Amino acid sequence: MDLKSKIRVVPDFPKPGISFKDITTLLKDREAYVYTIDSLVAFCKDKGAELIVGPEARGFVLGAPVAYALKVGFVPVRKPGKLPAETVRYEYGLEYGSDVLEIHKDAIQPGQKVVVVDDLLATGGTALAAVKLVEKIGGIVTGVAFVIELSYLNGRKTLEGYDVYSVITYDD
Amino acid sequence: MDLKSKIRVVPDFPKPGISFKDITTLLKDREAYVYTIDSLVAFCKDKGAELIVGPEARGFVLGAPVAYALKVGFVPVRKPGKLPAETVRYEYGLEYGSDVLEIHKDAIQPGQKVVVVDDLLATGGTALAAVKLVEKIGGIVTGVAFVIELSYLNGRKTLEGYDVYSVITYDD
Repeated sequence: MDLKSKIRVVPDFPKPGISFKDITTLLKDREAYVYTIDSLVAFCKDKGAELIVGPEARGFVLGAPVAYALKVGFVPVRKPGKLPAETVRYEYGLEYGSDVLEIHKDAIQPGQKVVVVDDLLATGGTALAAVKLVEKIGGIVTGVAFVIELSYLNGRKTLEGYDVYSVITYDD
Repeated sequence: MDLKSKIRVVPDFPKPGISFKDITTLLKDREAYVYTIDSLVAFCKDKGAELIVGPEARGFVLGAPVAYALKVGFVPVRKPGKLPAETVRYEYGLEYGSDVLEIHKDAIQPGQKVVVVDDLLATGGTALAAVKLVEKIGGIVTGVAFVIELSYLNGRKTLEGYDVYSVITYDD
């Protein structure tokens, strides 16, 4: 399936010079949506996923259906103050300033095999934060999966040592 | 299945006096998660859903797997500034102040049957906003579905005239 034709490229969003890859046009297309989730599911199954972790908010849209299809649980990684029980936090650098993500301390059983699922691999900062949070609470990250990879931003380097999969790749 | 036992009640979150119903303990439990999604799917199927709409962010965790299971598309309703293309907005009153939600103008084909899926029915303000956004762009709302309903907050009154379903109800 030509999935790239289902993605809307929005120029200068969220700021000038950035060509935003809008997946909402893919999500609303039933064939493209099911095909995309099934592709992610095949990777996660191969990696023995016993739990899927997805970062807020687009990671929820992809990670939750993958978990459902595999009949495993789903764990959200969220911005500070959103998770109500005891959390573990991870601070990471962004192009400008830094950001923080949290996971519930009791979200994962030690030794559980986890795949992190998100919409976009750009520089890899958010995905690495999710990976580190999983490891901090005892999970084993067996893979990291994305719908879109912007290969020219070298996110795979950030995630070196982890098995990375993406459904669609943009090379420039 | 005793789903209530899978929900963690966190006292005084996000502010004193509120008993927060935390569904992350349900989401990470594979049996409870699949059972919950399947319950929502049965309702949506009965309502002839051709598209599922979910409000940011917990609505994504429930709505996206329901869409996948039904093999229909998923459309996100988001906070302002998050959707990159042309949007329609709806402002609604909250207990303190007001809030705004947006949907992409081209997200729904006129006449498409839509079910709105979210985690929690409290006063119903967010769900009604999502319903109004769907209708503004030509969709037909055939139902509104939740994991949890706090019946003492009378959200069904806010959604009067719409078919409302919830998997779990708290009466006090």
